[in-house]
Order: sequence, then C-alpha cells, then structure tokens
Amino acid sequence: MTQTFGENLLDAASTRGRLCVGIDPHESLLRAWGLPVDATGLAEFSRICVEAFADTVALVKPQVAFYERFGSRGFAVLEETIGTLRERGCLVVSDAKRGDIGSTMAGYATAWLDPGSPLSSDAVTVSPYLGFGSLQPVFDLAEEHGRGVFVLAATSNPEARVLQDQTDASGVSISQQIVNEAAALNAPHLAQHRAGNIGVVVGATLTDPPALSGLNGAILMPGVGTQGGTAQDVGTIAGDMAHLAFPNVSRAVLAQGPDVGNLRVAVSETAAEFPGFPRS
Amino acid sequence: MTQTFGENLLDAASTRGRLCVGIDPHESLLRAWGLPVDATGLAEFSRICVEAFADTVALVKPQVAFYERFGSRGFAVLEETIGTLRERGCLVVSDAKRGDIGSTMAGYATAWLDPGSPLSSDAVTVSPYLGFGSLQPVFDLAEEHGRGVFVLAATSNPEARVLQDQTDASGVSISQQIVNEAAALNAPHLAQHRAGNIGVVVGATLTDPPALSGLNGAILMPGVGTQGGTAQDVGTIAGDMAHLAFPNVSRAVLAQGPDVGNLRVAVSETAAEFPGFPRS
Repeated sequence: MTQTFGENLLDAASTRGRLCVGIDPHESLLRAWGLPVDATGLAEFSRICVEAFADTVALVKPQVAFYERFGSRGFAVLEETIGTLRERGCLVVSDAKRGDIGSTMAGYATAWLDPGSPLSSDAVTVSPYLGFGSLQPVFDLAEEHGRGVFVLAATSNPEARVLQDQTDASGVSISQQIVNEAAALNAPHLAQHRAGNIGVVVGATLTDPPALSGLNGAILMPGVGTQGGTAQDVGTIAGDMAHLAFPNVSRAVLAQGPDVGNLRVAVSETAAEFPGFPRS
Repeated sequence: MTQTFGENLLDAASTRGRLCVGIDPHESLLRAWGLPVDATGLAEFSRICVEAFADTVALVKPQVAFYERFGSRGFAVLEETIGTLRERGCLVVSDAKRGDIGSTMAGYATAWLDPGSPLSSDAVTVSPYLGFGSLQPVFDLAEEHGRGVFVLAATSNPEARVLQDQTDASGVSISQQIVNEAAALNAPHLAQHRAGNIGVVVGATLTDPPALSGLNGAILMPGVGTQGGTAQDVGTIAGDMAHLAFPNVSRAVLAQGPDVGNLRVAVSETAAEFPGFPRS
C-alpha cells in the first residue's frame, strides 16, 4: 500500500523537526540579498535557499507567485528548485493556492502532484472558494500517489475573517466545515492507524481557530515568527494533532540571508522550538 | 486618464459581440484534435485557436491550468498565445483563479497584469477565499493600468453552492457580498459615466443568482452552451448590466476543431446570439 504524505511528514519530522520553511523571493528580499530582480536573481536566491535548507528542513514551501511573476523563466527555476530539494531529501509543498473545477482542477492536480510532471511536488496548497467538493480531482491524485494537499481553512490574514467565519444553518463556520471535510477524507487512513494525505492551513495567530481534533492530517500553520505566533500558540491550536502541526516560518529565517551559514543557524534555532515526535 | 478595462470591453463588443471564447486544451481535446499530449501539442492547439479567434472574438480566455500542467514549457506556450492574441486585437482574460495575500498577491498581480510581464493580460480571474480585501494588490494594479479583474462570485458548479450561498448576519449571501464589494470599487468610474475595471464571475445556469444591478463592471458568465445556459438566461441574470455580460463558451466551440473554418463558423453563430451594444 502506498505510504501516505502524512506518514512521510511524521518520518521527516522525527529527525528534522516539525518546521516548514518558506522560499519567498519577493522583490524587496531579492534586493536585500543584492540580487537582480529578474529570473537570474530568482535562480540565485533559490540556489542559496536549497543549499541552506536541503539537509535539515523537513518541509520546504516555495511560494509559486514569486516564480510565476517571471513567467516561463520563473517556472523553469521553480522546477529546478523543487527537483533538487526532493533529490536531497526534503519534502516540498508548493504554495500555489490553486482551485478550479472538473477537468481544469484535474489539470492543476497533474501539474503539482503527478510524478511525471516537471513541477511534481510532495504536496500543494489549494483554495476552496468553488466548494470543497470541487477539489476532488486533486484529492484523488493525492490518494493515488501518496502525495499531500493542504486546503485553506482558517488563514492568518485579518481580511479573511469576514468570509471564513460565516456559518451554515447549524452555526458551523466555513473554516470548521473545511476541516471537517478534510477529516472525513482522512478517516479511512485513521482506521489503518496512519495519518492521511489531506491537510489544512490554519493560522497560528487566530483567536478563535477551528477544532482540529480528529483531522488525522497535517496542519500547515503560517503566522509564526514575524507575524507574532509562538510555539505555545501552535500547541494550543493544534491540540492532540500537535504531532502533525507544521508551523511555517519564512521571513524570520530569510531575513538572515544571503549567508548560508546564517540561514542554517536561523533554521536550526527555529526548528528546536518544534521538535518532531519519535517514530516507533 | 487611463481607459478602463470595462470601456475596452464595451468597445470590443460593439463590433465583435459580447462573447468570451475559452482556450481549454485538456488532454481529451488534444487527443480529439489528433495532437500529442505534450507541450508541442499544446502549442499547435493554441496556434489553431489563435488563427480561428483572433480576428473576430472580443474576449479570449486561455485556461491556465492546461498550460501549467506542462510546467515552464507550457507557460512559454501561454506567453506566446497571450501575446499574439493581444497583438491581433483580442482582449485576453487569463483564467488563473489566483488568490493570496499581501506581497504574494502583489506577485500574482504583477505576473498577469503588469505591462512588462511575459504573461501580461488584459484581465485575470481571481478567487476570494482569503477575503475580498486580500485581493487589493490586484485591484490596485488593475486601476493603475486600466486592466481588468474578474472575482469569482457565484460559480456554475453544483459543489459551490454549499459555500457561496452561506449568508452573513444580515442574510446577504457570500456571492452577493462579493458582487457588492466589486460594485463599490467601480463606483468612482460610474460617477465618470464609464464602466469600471472590476468584474465578477456569475454562472449562467444559476437559479438564484446574485443581483448585479449597480455593478458597473463586466460579468463573465460560464455555463452557456454545453452546460445548458441560454441567451435568455444570460439576459435574465444580467438585467440592466446585460451590455457588460460576456457569456463564456468553450467546449461547444472547441468541439468543432481542429478545422479553423469550422471553429470560425461556431464562433460566428454563437456570437450572433450575444450582440454588442452600439457605442456613442
């Protein structure tokens, strides 16, 4: 039986810690690192990140927008970055936040999770505005290949609350509905005593987060570090899913670049706050 | 003052009709056209569509997922396709359904709407799960350059209803909230007696669509043709915004390919159902 993405993550975390480090080559950071704002600067930025993260980080999250900005040349850099990180033993979640329906959603699923795709990643982030059910093609491909999907549920930006906190007739928030639907997809794996493939994105700075108990899937938690979320917040929000909670840190680490040694120290210090759990 | 995207659309529709034709090179269609399922097949499919649509269609909508599927090589084909269509006088809306926050959303905005980007399009579709306000960077760039944004509001897929029909404390549906926020952004242009830059996506098959009166922006309406929506449905849903309603037809037209002559006949017959309004 195919190993699940959830189990792959738990394995990685047991030796590397529960940390997701972002690669966010936005314009101001390219400049701060003394790099040109073009595809060659993007390539050098990415090369430095790979060098700094590949041997020690459990989960690396390239932010697709910053590659897409440079069109096909940016995507060529992203392909190289994803491929090298995976060859060197990192799990890669491509932060694409894609969402569509039917054969179009299947196209995105193939782009990011098919083993033969040039952008093939261990996991991808997706957005459920078209309904959780519209994402079925990416869930299907994830189950087939033991890849992961992180569905946006309760995000850490303040503008999100007006939409994500709205409730259905039973008073269940949209964020909680997303978590519950992901949990339902992971339930067959729970019966096999293993973590499933379908994760969620839940901000570490939320005052009223959705209940995550029973998710049995990974939780990507942005908002740690520069945005104010702490290790204690992560523990409180994740509850009995803490072993599957991966805080995402990007700016606090990248601010230490471009020196590879300094980046490694920042990763190591941050990862120490989020140790993995031993694997039996 | 920069011409708005809404005005550009009305100009195009006055001579070409109010039709948005999709370029959807999904796998089954590549095969049906006798093309290989790779970037060379994608390029030939796109070349045929450009040949068939460039001289007569007001708005052409490449579906980004089907290019992304082939990674950087697919994006190179998309760049060429968008560029050629625009050179030949079509307006191009890239159907990307992107959505993120802050500097990341600004990255997507630059990718699709900045005049210097290799993927520079007349308009882009975006998804508001992170909150309508999170999309502000793409609205800002659209206003600056007179480009367009279509925000997903009420989509035509059945899985969408459970999310998009939920209501706030005043009983206003999420779909209607999105339309109202877009209308607020277009209001300054209404005061200048011209259509604004911010449009919405509203399915032509909806039985309970949001009210569009007062939007003063373009409406992209999928669901016409194969999915069952008719010209009458478009008129009923769009109401007094009918002059800005652009039904999207993809499969019904593309099924007539790969013969360019047959594709042109299909476009011409469909466009005749949705005439533009004369411009004073």
